[in-house]
Amino acid sequence: MKNILVLGAGLSSSSLIRYLLENSVENDWKVCIVDQDIDMVQSKIDGHINGKAMSFNAIYAEQRRPEIEKADLVISMLPARFHVPIAEDCITYKTDLITPSYISEEMRELDEKAKEAGIVIMNEIGVDPGIDHMSAMKIIHEIKERGGKLTSFKSFTGGLIAPESDNNPWNYKFTWNPRNVVLAGQGGAASFLRNGRHKYIPYNRLFGRLENITIDGYGDFVGYANRNSLSYRETYGIEDIPTIFRGTLRRPGYCKAWDIFIELGMTDDSYSMENTANLTPRTFLNSFLPYNPSRPVEDKFKDFIREDRMDSFERFEWLGLFKDEPIVGIENATPAQVLQKILVDKLSLEEGDKDMLVMVHEFEYELNGEKSQITSHMVNIGEDQIYTSMSNTVGLPTAICAKMILNGTLKSKGVTLPVQKEVYTPILEELEKFDIRFVEKELALN
Amino acid sequence: MKNILVLGAGLSSSSLIRYLLENSVENDWKVCIVDQDIDMVQSKIDGHINGKAMSFNAIYAEQRRPEIEKADLVISMLPARFHVPIAEDCITYKTDLITPSYISEEMRELDEKAKEAGIVIMNEIGVDPGIDHMSAMKIIHEIKERGGKLTSFKSFTGGLIAPESDNNPWNYKFTWNPRNVVLAGQGGAASFLRNGRHKYIPYNRLFGRLENITIDGYGDFVGYANRNSLSYRETYGIEDIPTIFRGTLRRPGYCKAWDIFIELGMTDDSYSMENTANLTPRTFLNSFLPYNPSRPVEDKFKDFIREDRMDSFERFEWLGLFKDEPIVGIENATPAQVLQKILVDKLSLEEGDKDMLVMVHEFEYELNGEKSQITSHMVNIGEDQIYTSMSNTVGLPTAICAKMILNGTLKSKGVTLPVQKEVYTPILEELEKFDIRFVEKELALN
Repeated sequence: MKNILVLGAGLSSSSLIRYLLENSVENDWKVCIVDQDIDMVQSKIDGHINGKAMSFNAIYAEQRRPEIEKADLVISMLPARFHVPIAEDCITYKTDLITPSYISEEMRELDEKAKEAGIVIMNEIGVDPGIDHMSAMKIIHEIKERGGKLTSFKSFTGGLIAPESDNNPWNYKFTWNPRNVVLAGQGGAASFLRNGRHKYIPYNRLFGRLENITIDGYGDFVGYANRNSLSYRETYGIEDIPTIFRGTLRRPGYCKAWDIFIELGMTDDSYSMENTANLTPRTFLNSFLPYNPSRPVEDKFKDFIREDRMDSFERFEWLGLFKDEPIVGIENATPAQVLQKILVDKLSLEEGDKDMLVMVHEFEYELNGEKSQITSHMVNIGEDQIYTSMSNTVGLPTAICAKMILNGTLKSKGVTLPVQKEVYTPILEELEKFDIRFVEKELALN
Repeated sequence: MKNILVLGAGLSSSSLIRYLLENSVENDWKVCIVDQDIDMVQSKIDGHINGKAMSFNAIYAEQRRPEIEKADLVISMLPARFHVPIAEDCITYKTDLITPSYISEEMRELDEKAKEAGIVIMNEIGVDPGIDHMSAMKIIHEIKERGGKLTSFKSFTGGLIAPESDNNPWNYKFTWNPRNVVLAGQGGAASFLRNGRHKYIPYNRLFGRLENITIDGYGDFVGYANRNSLSYRETYGIEDIPTIFRGTLRRPGYCKAWDIFIELGMTDDSYSMENTANLTPRTFLNSFLPYNPSRPVEDKFKDFIREDRMDSFERFEWLGLFKDEPIVGIENATPAQVLQKILVDKLSLEEGDKDMLVMVHEFEYELNGEKSQITSHMVNIGEDQIYTSMSNTVGLPTAICAKMILNGTLKSKGVTLPVQKEVYTPILEELEKFDIRFVEKELALN
């Protein structure tokens, strides 16, 4: 019997754990799941004969090491900052490791040691990063094999609300960590390439410079630039590409309105405001608007957003930003924390709501003097509030990769990510059974 | 003979050194001046019999300590981060210390030890901080002595170009460290109080929310908010004041245009741009504008600044931002470094130019049911490019304070700043001899 050790049983682990348990009898797996919250682990194992619940804090080396030593494969669903020490243990005990997180510089430096130990440390195998790499590399490899020259690559991903549950003027609900949504785009300008020209978008312009995307049957989206697109050139082996852009998808009105939060200063997480225990949404908003003894907050806010953004006004009104009732439960809060509280009260998933994961790639290439475009998109709707689309798209590629490592079909060693055909082909194929499916279209460009 | 040790002989020390040497014979002072650049020290001493030039790096304890031990008073004109270890040495050797810099938290913690050693560590005794404290406290104390209740305090300072040298559309030239000017306002929202309401201005709105100031004979200025105004309530003993605001002065068009730099992302110092060695002002600007294969940079820039800011266009044109000639001498530069290079080429002082220091306070108070306003302003023009207004207004209060410590008229001990009458009265009086003079006006408010 092979032992799988899963570290972390939170939101993002539900679909992973279900897949591993459902496939455990056929494959002869024992699935040991660790979380500080033993009740959560037990509810996810749900009495399955091959599941074993354990409760300890995996950040403590002396607690996790005996379990890593016993395991044939470790899957770490912990926050990214904990992965490196776990990877070092996996090298010591020659145990393969999977994480869905971005490869850090420190992780990359373990490549040689991992190869010496004969193990694979597979990273970036969730949805974004993960499915984006795999579905893009499939098409990039196909274009190269046909002798084509890739001239443009744009890629967009968004975790959104399913159309049937989309019932507010923001066309958005939190389907993932709200804090990350509030702070999205902070920490450096976004950078990308357009026709050989380096472009930079500072945080304060990020939600004002958008790419328009339409998906048949799903309507209009916009994409705002996602951090540093340039590093993907090396990862994807497309170093000379003149246009590369990665973006995050939202429904159109969301970004235009979110831009106003940023311009007001409400997403700032760098300082604590005064007297936040007594704040109301109205006094919170007013603290970012100029003083005027004779003009109500509504009018000052209209002055601020200017005529061209007036269609966003109702979104703020709907959030209750002009209400003068206390915001419960925040002291010494940063503006971002107050904003998060206001948003979570209005933009959380309701009973029966489903989430939606949308991914779109746009490629342009030249072959025999002809220019063509390939688009590839995937829209996936969640099952419910446990097996969300986010949980499925993060957890299933991770789980399928685990199967491939344990049954010996994945041969890679060292610190890697899923950009090789032998890795992505079986994963993309199996994902289609779970309705995680890309629709590709090709058309000639004039 | 009393020994004065001056650490640092840079730009800001010229007027300080001149005062100390000119008063050294009458007061029996020996003035020992230390800088790594011995030629600069010697040019400032200019053969004066009581001046002694030394060349060492004062940040090395073993080099500075013997000199601190010999001295009766140390004046540190080094960057603020070096003051605390020097203060610790001064405590060890029981030597008084003056610095024009803001009191750091670590400096404040030395108060008890300084008192035990029987020394004074006088800080914030340049212009801003320094003359601002002294000139404001004079009026605050006068209002309190008359039984008035202060309801509003606004204070503005600006290092600008003198009207006779003001010959560019920015109405600005660098009279101080250009890097600090380019990065001004970064590192947290500005916060202040208006009529009891806490107000916050994020960096991206800082140069768009301005206070208007007019000074008879000097025309119009605008003030943008300067960091955290709230801490001044405790320093000035005006904890309950409902309105407090500190600002930095510029000529009106400057801020409106600078706001565009910030919105573009050109003042960002947090990342290095690609290929900066090959940048031109035009490609630099274009890298912050959207890609458009058929629209020239000038038109894209006009789209960006919008109709209401079109009067700023000529300021950018005058800077040469649309020129396609290489910017010499920058590799791996941040946007802020590239911008600084472009600005320094156009906005530096020219032969014969003079600088100007402007300070304005506005007080409102209530007495016997009547509301009144007091304004107090000081405009000082520099002598030349060595004895600038900046050098005079920083160096002279420091030098006068030195005299008061050495002749025993300043009795304070411990870590302090010039907010007491016994300190500011003689300094403000003597500054008038150097044409650093406040003009006060009082008028009744309806």
